[in-house]
Amino acid sequence: MKLATYKDGSRDGQLMVVSRDLGTAHFATGIASRLQQVLDDWNFLSPQLEDLSHTLNQGKARHAFAFDPRQCAAPLPRAYQWADGSAYINHVELVRAARKAEVPASFYEDPLMYQGGSDDFLGPCDPAPFADPAWGIDFEAEIAVVTGDVANGCTPVQALEGIRLVMLANDWSLRHLIPAELAKGFGFFQSKPATAFSPVAVTLDELGTAWQGGRLHLPLQSSWNGQRVGQCNAGPEMTFHFGQLIAHLAKTRNVRAGSIIGSGTVSNKDWTHGYSCIAEKRCIETIESGAAATAFMQYGDTIRIEMTSSDGASIFGAIDQTVVPAAKT
Amino acid sequence: MKLATYKDGSRDGQLMVVSRDLGTAHFATGIASRLQQVLDDWNFLSPQLEDLSHTLNQGKARHAFAFDPRQCAAPLPRAYQWADGSAYINHVELVRAARKAEVPASFYEDPLMYQGGSDDFLGPCDPAPFADPAWGIDFEAEIAVVTGDVANGCTPVQALEGIRLVMLANDWSLRHLIPAELAKGFGFFQSKPATAFSPVAVTLDELGTAWQGGRLHLPLQSSWNGQRVGQCNAGPEMTFHFGQLIAHLAKTRNVRAGSIIGSGTVSNKDWTHGYSCIAEKRCIETIESGAAATAFMQYGDTIRIEMTSSDGASIFGAIDQTVVPAAKT
Repeated sequence: MKLATYKDGSRDGQLMVVSRDLGTAHFATGIASRLQQVLDDWNFLSPQLEDLSHTLNQGKARHAFAFDPRQCAAPLPRAYQWADGSAYINHVELVRAARKAEVPASFYEDPLMYQGGSDDFLGPCDPAPFADPAWGIDFEAEIAVVTGDVANGCTPVQALEGIRLVMLANDWSLRHLIPAELAKGFGFFQSKPATAFSPVAVTLDELGTAWQGGRLHLPLQSSWNGQRVGQCNAGPEMTFHFGQLIAHLAKTRNVRAGSIIGSGTVSNKDWTHGYSCIAEKRCIETIESGAAATAFMQYGDTIRIEMTSSDGASIFGAIDQTVVPAAKT
Repeated sequence: MKLATYKDGSRDGQLMVVSRDLGTAHFATGIASRLQQVLDDWNFLSPQLEDLSHTLNQGKARHAFAFDPRQCAAPLPRAYQWADGSAYINHVELVRAARKAEVPASFYEDPLMYQGGSDDFLGPCDPAPFADPAWGIDFEAEIAVVTGDVANGCTPVQALEGIRLVMLANDWSLRHLIPAELAKGFGFFQSKPATAFSPVAVTLDELGTAWQGGRLHLPLQSSWNGQRVGQCNAGPEMTFHFGQLIAHLAKTRNVRAGSIIGSGTVSNKDWTHGYSCIAEKRCIETIESGAAATAFMQYGDTIRIEMTSSDGASIFGAIDQTVVPAAKT
């Protein structure tokens, strides 16, 4: 099934079921009002939502209406955890090669992950507000999963069982804030502002055979100012699958229902597949010609991130955002 | 007023008001069932809780019962954000001096903060489970505040207005996991397992004149295995006050209601005040004699963290935890 959250003025929005073709939707009223509620009580509530989804997909839901992604908040407008990996080692290799540094051997065994802020996510079509365009504004197109409860010390295989939903993420990054921030030693903080998510989160059965071994084997499309810049396959080159990322997180503590785990920038060795963040394009330019030529995003720039199944249908709907100046306080 | 959350088998527990002397409590039933609910709608719900608090403190609440901190979850059993600072620069100076490194000049202007996991906090008297005592188990006694909504780009003075509640935190740290984790460049992750909080969170008026300029001017007591090891004053040597920490967090994004911001290990220049984490004791030993002599915590060790007002009364109740082996999965 496919789930979305409409903005209704409340902090958690209104949960609804969306048809497979993203054409129609139906409020989940009577089953659950918020997505976190469903994740908290998955075994009881999700079968009821599945029933509604079935009726909706058959065109028999009596109060269905046209689905409008512009009314969507993130599926979870706020969450208790957002932990983002850097699971495509090619991305790390590019960044390191551009500054002529080696990738430590341990990076192929031990995933890079950071803890992000999860109190204020952006909806898929929300403007992305930044106070200063000189911060080096960049998108990052990613896959993300939402978990149920996963126990402290679980194995990667056990962790895979905890995955409830899959969605797309735009992990906004402020590149020029990163070097000074990482030099302080405590990791990303101001350089990772609010993240945006796709209109719809889907259960694994919606992905069919594209979901294999904890990886999503489909190309992720990124279009910057209307021009397709990325079409990297999210599957084969994901060095650490989602079960490994979740188990990494669960090494020293429990992971509780509603945790969101990101893949990091989807990246392929074949540069003709393009890029899922501008930083990577700049790394390639640096490697090829000694200097980065492509500038980061400016006010008014747009970014569209989407994934289609083999028949060309959009799976999650599109993240479609415009960079804007932040409101003055 | 003083607020606490009793465990009731649910994920968010049951909100209650606790008397100033921590002797009695009263469920907030009829006003709000969960603390997050109050933070989401503070201006409407907090006056009603204040009324109940007043009645309880006068001994006139009809369904009051004896308050038992052992029944408490963290005031927010899970939260949408937990961002922890390192606001006592003396702590940073000690750590650096022990490894003969300088403190960068920027550290006196620009606070160190990291994003922590907030999906699964420990209650004040919950055992602290760790799979391996060789991880270098350490407590960290801190002050923490809970905010309302604070806007992107706010000033430190504006940020102070967003503080709703104050509590104590035990930011458990796994010291031997830290060096390899920080070397990876993405900051703390596995080295910061679930954090514990005091039984009670209090509004600023409960702190009287001890709350000044965004700092809490009282000694924080830490007792390890029944022995008082720390009595550091949390006020005068807090290099960055809570408004500065919150504004640092809000530089590139909104901070939403229910965000928890920590002070980092409370630390004083005068070593006779003791220590609020074992790592600091080991730094002092290294500076004085070339090597750390004190071992980190072992299974069965206890840590008690508490703060009393000038008349000797406990303000927040005590964090009182025992280190135990993690359950096998």
